[in-house]
Amino acid sequence: MELPALSDIQSAHRRIIPFIHRTPVLTSRLLDSIAGCEMFFKCENFQKVGAFKFRGATNAVLSLTDDQKKAGVVTHSSGNHAAALALAAGMNGIRAFIVMPENAPSVKKDAVAGYGALITFCKPTLQAREETCRNIMETEGATLVHPYDNFGVICGQGTASLELLEEINDLDVVIAPVGGGGLMSGTSTCVKGISRKTVVIGAEPLNANDAWKSFTTGILTPSVNPLTIADGLLTSLSELTFSIIRKNVDDIFTVSEESIISAMKLVWERMKIIIEPSSATVFAVVMENRQFFRGKRTGLIISGGNVDLKKLPF
Amino acid sequence: MELPALSDIQSAHRRIIPFIHRTPVLTSRLLDSIAGCEMFFKCENFQKVGAFKFRGATNAVLSLTDDQKKAGVVTHSSGNHAAALALAAGMNGIRAFIVMPENAPSVKKDAVAGYGALITFCKPTLQAREETCRNIMETEGATLVHPYDNFGVICGQGTASLELLEEINDLDVVIAPVGGGGLMSGTSTCVKGISRKTVVIGAEPLNANDAWKSFTTGILTPSVNPLTIADGLLTSLSELTFSIIRKNVDDIFTVSEESIISAMKLVWERMKIIIEPSSATVFAVVMENRQFFRGKRTGLIISGGNVDLKKLPF
Repeated sequence: MELPALSDIQSAHRRIIPFIHRTPVLTSRLLDSIAGCEMFFKCENFQKVGAFKFRGATNAVLSLTDDQKKAGVVTHSSGNHAAALALAAGMNGIRAFIVMPENAPSVKKDAVAGYGALITFCKPTLQAREETCRNIMETEGATLVHPYDNFGVICGQGTASLELLEEINDLDVVIAPVGGGGLMSGTSTCVKGISRKTVVIGAEPLNANDAWKSFTTGILTPSVNPLTIADGLLTSLSELTFSIIRKNVDDIFTVSEESIISAMKLVWERMKIIIEPSSATVFAVVMENRQFFRGKRTGLIISGGNVDLKKLPF
Repeated sequence: MELPALSDIQSAHRRIIPFIHRTPVLTSRLLDSIAGCEMFFKCENFQKVGAFKFRGATNAVLSLTDDQKKAGVVTHSSGNHAAALALAAGMNGIRAFIVMPENAPSVKKDAVAGYGALITFCKPTLQAREETCRNIMETEGATLVHPYDNFGVICGQGTASLELLEEINDLDVVIAPVGGGGLMSGTSTCVKGISRKTVVIGAEPLNANDAWKSFTTGILTPSVNPLTIADGLLTSLSELTFSIIRKNVDDIFTVSEESIISAMKLVWERMKIIIEPSSATVFAVVMENRQFFRGKRTGLIISGGNVDLKKLPF
């Protein structure tokens, strides 16, 4: 199994630069004084489609051969990756087939359809999604772009940290959320490639702590029916992302649902930016571990800002 | 009555620079394509205390004589100006007396108290507020810093546009919200001082359209019991702000409550930034007047981001 290197992330960055937003790194003296450390928020909530996922999807699409580009790409997802792949493919004149459960929220269906993707609905089970996906691969010759178990996707996700470290020197710690591990894999590969001594921490909801379990025991242990408000972090690590995380991540910290919600509220109220619950996990980690972070220059990967304003937890 | 000139705003800017945030000018290709024009959002929601009010309050405080500084400042307000004056005074070692109605939301009381101001509560009537304020002026010798009917405050508010026009050339239009007219006075003085041909528009809720009425009839006509979600725009013009607005503003456009709410929602969802209803009026003006703004380079003063997350209109 080939693990990505810093140079792969640097190549990915050169490839995707014309398509992505270079997102800002924001700071807040007020939150710094509350948290007791110096924080640098890399704001992927301002990325296209509202999430870092656009980086990985774009890199995956641009890394296809010409023949693959002609046939198109396919994925099964109802979240940010589906929208990201739809837009990345559309911007490059490539067909995107998106397999979605028939009960997906209409706002997500509309977003994906709005980017010009071809949606195939299926029953809301993993089996049905994988089967439908395989059918499209066979009949259309489309290439699967998995949301995180994919070399090109992982390298694309790592480019957020590349920009963060270009802009901010001497970070003591970098924190990113862990779901399937694509962002965490890219982030940790990038950070350790640039600065061995920078500590890399994964942020995970206690209620979906498969990465923490796997990391602690050394045995890949998928989540069973995880239930958390951080709906971007319900997925479990793959063999590939687990291998990268074992190699490059220093520790994984879990946070309670209450912490996630109050961290999210604090960022909304004080920084005046909209971040989704999955992104709030990283700030929640800081707030739950004051002693660990005290005085440290801390980079936080804010993964996205897609929330349903009708279903806010506060 | 002395009206401020561009040079007064430039002096104010030099005076307050060490204390204020230089807020970013944000753009959104998505919102541009929805609105059909090129928009530049000057984001005072990222200003200290979450609103442009900190500029005016800081300039007023720094413009005091040494004797005045010793005696302190006083104002009656339950909104952003109270917090702004409390912080501006506190940062400069000056006492701030804030008169607030006893029924003010506790979150606002706490904010003002947190900045170290001395709060005096009174009955929730304008008469009681003014009387209490006068008492403090007499007994403490404190200088009144009115939220908008004040030369120094107006000059401070104008510095947001100064930064906007420094950064963005050749704006066809600049829009700012109108409440008591402090921001509008500073904005219009600044913009017309720099670029005579740039059109200056005031944005006002239809349900609190005293500025529109006064501007249209030429007779100062205060609002009677205005009721709008844009709670920063309930106040009416003063003689001073009306004179400045008559001289420098090209037109005032009113917007419905529905427009304000949907404009606010669109900015939250697409730009991922938190703006308050009063600020949403400027984008609502663009959305309600597509033909007028088509293709124009438009500057929008986003006045603040203080919202109660428990009372969202969507």
